[in-house]
Amino acid sequence: MAQPHGPLSQLRRGHEELVLGLLRKHGPLSRGELGKHCGLSRTTLYDILAELVAEGAVVTATSQDAPRGRGRPAETLTLNPDAGQAIGIDFARRGLHVAAVNVAHEIVGSASEPHDADLPWEERVALAERLVGSLTGAGSGALRLGALAAIGVGVVGAQVEGTDPDEKGSAPHPAQLLLRERFGVPVLLDNNTRLAALGESIWGAAAGGQDVLYLRLSHGVGGGLVVGGSLHRGAYGLSGEFGHITVEPGGARCDCGGTGCLETVASIRAVLDAYRDAGGRAADIPELVKAVRAGETGALTLLSGVGARIGEVLAAVCNAIGPSVIVIGGELAETGPALIGPIEGALHDHVMPVSRQRVSLRRATLGEVAGALGGIALVLHESPLLSRYPAGPDLAEIPSMTQTRHP
Amino acid sequence: MAQPHGPLSQLRRGHEELVLGLLRKHGPLSRGELGKHCGLSRTTLYDILAELVAEGAVVTATSQDAPRGRGRPAETLTLNPDAGQAIGIDFARRGLHVAAVNVAHEIVGSASEPHDADLPWEERVALAERLVGSLTGAGSGALRLGALAAIGVGVVGAQVEGTDPDEKGSAPHPAQLLLRERFGVPVLLDNNTRLAALGESIWGAAAGGQDVLYLRLSHGVGGGLVVGGSLHRGAYGLSGEFGHITVEPGGARCDCGGTGCLETVASIRAVLDAYRDAGGRAADIPELVKAVRAGETGALTLLSGVGARIGEVLAAVCNAIGPSVIVIGGELAETGPALIGPIEGALHDHVMPVSRQRVSLRRATLGEVAGALGGIALVLHESPLLSRYPAGPDLAEIPSMTQTRHP
Repeated sequence: MAQPHGPLSQLRRGHEELVLGLLRKHGPLSRGELGKHCGLSRTTLYDILAELVAEGAVVTATSQDAPRGRGRPAETLTLNPDAGQAIGIDFARRGLHVAAVNVAHEIVGSASEPHDADLPWEERVALAERLVGSLTGAGSGALRLGALAAIGVGVVGAQVEGTDPDEKGSAPHPAQLLLRERFGVPVLLDNNTRLAALGESIWGAAAGGQDVLYLRLSHGVGGGLVVGGSLHRGAYGLSGEFGHITVEPGGARCDCGGTGCLETVASIRAVLDAYRDAGGRAADIPELVKAVRAGETGALTLLSGVGARIGEVLAAVCNAIGPSVIVIGGELAETGPALIGPIEGALHDHVMPVSRQRVSLRRATLGEVAGALGGIALVLHESPLLSRYPAGPDLAEIPSMTQTRHP
Repeated sequence: MAQPHGPLSQLRRGHEELVLGLLRKHGPLSRGELGKHCGLSRTTLYDILAELVAEGAVVTATSQDAPRGRGRPAETLTLNPDAGQAIGIDFARRGLHVAAVNVAHEIVGSASEPHDADLPWEERVALAERLVGSLTGAGSGALRLGALAAIGVGVVGAQVEGTDPDEKGSAPHPAQLLLRERFGVPVLLDNNTRLAALGESIWGAAAGGQDVLYLRLSHGVGGGLVVGGSLHRGAYGLSGEFGHITVEPGGARCDCGGTGCLETVASIRAVLDAYRDAGGRAADIPELVKAVRAGETGALTLLSGVGARIGEVLAAVCNAIGPSVIVIGGELAETGPALIGPIEGALHDHVMPVSRQRVSLRRATLGEVAGALGGIALVLHESPLLSRYPAGPDLAEIPSMTQTRHP
């Protein structure tokens, strides 16, 4: 997380942010021009610039406009176009997760905070801002908002595109508008579960996987797919909706408008409700986990049935698309083998026998910050998994991330 | 199909094949060298060469080895590296389908012939050879075996790859060995249903589709996927196995080793058996189609139930991967609205409501030759749908198809 920092280093960070902000606003500037704009002493400014250049945040260039033959052309300074800083934010249903990478694209840190499901967007974005602030610690390699290139945001729900090819996509999401206003940089947005799938496939349980099925069992049930080495979006942005595959024809009504969807059986609320209906008591998943660890029969029986339903759905999807890795994430996966065992059993029973030894079932490893990390991956657009994924229209504004990295 | 041809044009075709065969065997040759090898009169040879050059099958080049300054360098002739001829063969369970493209990559024709399911491979390949022969008619643009670049072959069953990355793939299929021996060209092989999906997505019902789900209801039930503009293979070559998604837990035993698979309900045999069990009489699908057209209640009720199962599976796969087009092919689709209606109904009921208006269900349009056409597409490797599809090791032998077309 954020590194400890005293008042002096805070002051220095403030000066650095000032310089980086000027370079972002004005483009290439000479040392003299920077000095006029920032009002810092020559010594302080040169000191700070030397540090920023050494870290790779700023690069020097010889000005093209300098008159020829009249002594040395003026050297200008500019933000390093090859090294953007980026923030990822996952606006989950009942909590917020942020992560950030520095100019070297190393993860600086991450932070999370739960909130009510009905928290307005203004307050969510304000909370995001505070969490991001907690990551801007002192020291080399820390996040510098002045050099921020873009923000990648995950939100709940399918980001459905219209069927009219002339439509220029739907209106911006409130989170996009508010974040852009606050940070003044492009904001890319996608389904947060798909971003978690991306995060797990780049840095997590399925790192290096070319054909990955990611399932998240949380307040909602959904997932994402990497197929043939590419993050899959689906026509109109609709894919990975494993939670809305029918498992109980004529079953409970689902938020999607259907009935008997996997989500009506395997979401956090569905599982806690079913546990209560069976006479058990658990206010949340940690309490259910305790009951499971205590060997409580009702909890084990319930999870066995839920796991079987999940495994059946996974088997159907496996037969259709043939992944080599299945990753199970989300809070419900915290119940461990009591759920994962039955999932594995039903998967084994229903997947084509020839595939049984060819698919590996794993627990997610990135935890609740997977979606925020996926948001960063979306912005950096460096992973081969994204080589064919549509880049947001905003991304064109960041030459370092589209032109330089994807010639 | 094959064009009519008399003895004289047959003789001419024989001469053309001879010349093309020599160019394929020796590489670039001068007119003089060709004359020595083929034994034809100068007039006949020059006549044939003029025709082949005019058609684009053969191109002329100035020899690099000609000594400088000693008169005109010798002109050599070579097969046009930009225009290969190709054959596609679908070795289906109970029949054989061939198609061919000429040097301009236009489809010359196609032919089919049914056979017993247990016909040995030697006889299947001999039958394929006869059918291919029926396509080598006279006239401009016809197939010339002498300029044949490669053969694309579809076979029944998943072409499963081993899990050991060091393995160089499985042993060649008997059809590959026999065809290579006979035609002396590289033979690429894939699952024939996946090739049919490719054919329909390039030239058929889903032409231009970037996200296509193809389902074939035949002696087996399977399909193929185009995802994000690429034919999808799946880890280990296992994808599109929609026929082995469980629809009746604990149901009938399936050939795959599982139970209650869609194939145990929706294959030709399963449907005819169920029809007989219900007191109906139909020896084959055309007879069932007659019963349907006569409004026979038993047939309609049966297909309604089968269609519902199919629609449920399609909905599950749709929710997972979000295609924009679903194509239904195979003999069973000949039963028309009696089957397609119930499929559509169940798809509507079980797909996410938001997707209902975003997916279009269509009948296949290429008929039984779809797989053979897909085989040709695999060889030509020109479709953007194949830009990321693994090219067979043999393909490296055909510079015109890998190096020239995919720089």
